Amino acid sequence: MPGEFDLIDRIRARAGRRPDVVLGIGDDAAVLRVPPGHDLVVTSDTLVAGVHFPAETSAADLGWKALAVNLSDLAAMAATPAWCTLALTLPDADAGFVDAFLDGFLELADELGVSLVGGDTTGGPLSITVTAHGLVPAGEALRRDGARAGDEVWVTGTLGDAAGALAQWRAGGPFSAKLRYRLDRPTPRVAAGQALRGLATAGIDLSDGLAADLGHVLRASGVGARIDLGRLPTSRTLADHFDEARRWPLQLSGGDDYELCFTAPASAAFAIEQALAACGVSATVVGQVQAGAGLAFMTPEGEDYAPAQAGFQHFQGVH
Amino acid sequence: MPGEFDLIDRIRARAGRRPDVVLGIGDDAAVLRVPPGHDLVVTSDTLVAGVHFPAETSAADLGWKALAVNLSDLAAMAATPAWCTLALTLPDADAGFVDAFLDGFLELADELGVSLVGGDTTGGPLSITVTAHGLVPAGEALRRDGARAGDEVWVTGTLGDAAGALAQWRAGGPFSAKLRYRLDRPTPRVAAGQALRGLATAGIDLSDGLAADLGHVLRASGVGARIDLGRLPTSRTLADHFDEARRWPLQLSGGDDYELCFTAPASAAFAIEQALAACGVSATVVGQVQAGAGLAFMTPEGEDYAPAQAGFQHFQGVH
Repeated sequence: MPGEFDLIDRIRARAGRRPDVVLGIGDDAAVLRVPPGHDLVVTSDTLVAGVHFPAETSAADLGWKALAVNLSDLAAMAATPAWCTLALTLPDADAGFVDAFLDGFLELADELGVSLVGGDTTGGPLSITVTAHGLVPAGEALRRDGARAGDEVWVTGTLGDAAGALAQWRAGGPFSAKLRYRLDRPTPRVAAGQALRGLATAGIDLSDGLAADLGHVLRASGVGARIDLGRLPTSRTLADHFDEARRWPLQLSGGDDYELCFTAPASAAFAIEQALAACGVSATVVGQVQAGAGLAFMTPEGEDYAPAQAGFQHFQGVH
Repeated sequence: MPGEFDLIDRIRARAGRRPDVVLGIGDDAAVLRVPPGHDLVVTSDTLVAGVHFPAETSAADLGWKALAVNLSDLAAMAATPAWCTLALTLPDADAGFVDAFLDGFLELADELGVSLVGGDTTGGPLSITVTAHGLVPAGEALRRDGARAGDEVWVTGTLGDAAGALAQWRAGGPFSAKLRYRLDRPTPRVAAGQALRGLATAGIDLSDGLAADLGHVLRASGVGARIDLGRLPTSRTLADHFDEARRWPLQLSGGDDYELCFTAPASAAFAIEQALAACGVSATVVGQVQAGAGLAFMTPEGEDYAPAQAGFQHFQGVH
């Protein structure tokens, strides 16, 4: 059984290295060079076994997801991902698990040009904390507090697939592999986030569900919004497995979509569609920002709709 | 019982904010401004209950130590601490624990001018991952790989106090409050690290014990060293509780000192003493770097001494 330092050597041997990494894994800390005129964007997210993912999730999927949820936060800030650290707590020093975990983690890191520059391996109940670092031209980070009354509310991709997979898993099946893939291998909308610089007024990533996450934007911006449920972008697979009444709660409160939700004036709509199409990402206007507080949902029949729960709470768990 | 967002609000309300924090806690990520001509230095360390600290450690001590062990890594790089993120995994959303944890965490953060800029709170077995960010003039980070044959080996402060406290705890007492304080409230040698810029050739912080940590420096530098046990700096309290035969293993392999170990040419000795005295830190030459590999220890009688174990292994645990 390898010990802590052997695990670090395994990780170090496989970590990529950008030219702006002055010193990577293997010293007391990493040394990184931020280019002039750029701000540093930093986020940390933890995944705990049995709370954020079913315990039987594969190590490779876990590696992918642990990085993806952090890069999704950088995407929501319109930042370009650059570096990350990995704090991996494992019940035992299992080299096979670490290798498989790195398969998924580094597949995504390599795809997006992110260098793993440091971290920690410790013994304990399975848990992963990734800290991701991105760069954005100074002053151009996309924040939550810029939404204005009259702006349109957009979301990228489709909503509810990951929550659909979790609902199927909780019910004991039958399972859709397509939905499960969206749960296990979320795609952080990194290129889309960067494309929204100068176009969107506010943005957030959808980790806890549209109702909760858009709520954060509205409170930070001091405005409200109305969402038309008939406009929620829905995958064919989700529609095949869940009718409207079962789908809306998944799409509003299910979480784990890792799509972007953003606001922009109607005058920017054409430019946004062009910019996102250029990165191969679809986006849909789902509602409008309004003066005053509150977030209202309306059915296609024009009736008010109240989401069953206000977003995923991490102290609740998936088991 | 407050939920996740209430805990984040509690943390946000108390986090300090340096002028170079463009955007702190409360968005998808923090936005930070690195001054021109500086490198960014990043480290992540995890503390797990029962592995890195006795389960009955007070929340305030835990908060202090979770930050201290990370700032100690920055000190070893000669970096000036600037910002940190905190990923806190708790068995339940216990506001009293979080408040006490923040008492210790922010006491140290405020003392050293570090802003808490983000993080995550999740449910799960108690564990804390801190990522600390420091700044250093470009190219001036103190690395592990610069030690040269003929350099002197230095350590700051005294060694073995924390390991002495842990040995007393494992033996069921009697306890020394002074030793326990060194275990629970380690002082990261931040000012000393910065003072060593341009003077030391290599450096590391002593988290796993002198034998293991100096070993990392020697391997990275491609050299060996000889340490004189008679020169190990020892607190009066440790000497009162442990005779030499019981003390040396604590000082060489016990870990948790969070002092700095560094190498420097003899010609720099006077300047080093002056620079460290100016920050109120004592430092002692304990041996010499030699050509060739290997780390040898010699008793005051001139006999070879072999440390019982090669450093603290985090998969071993404290319970």
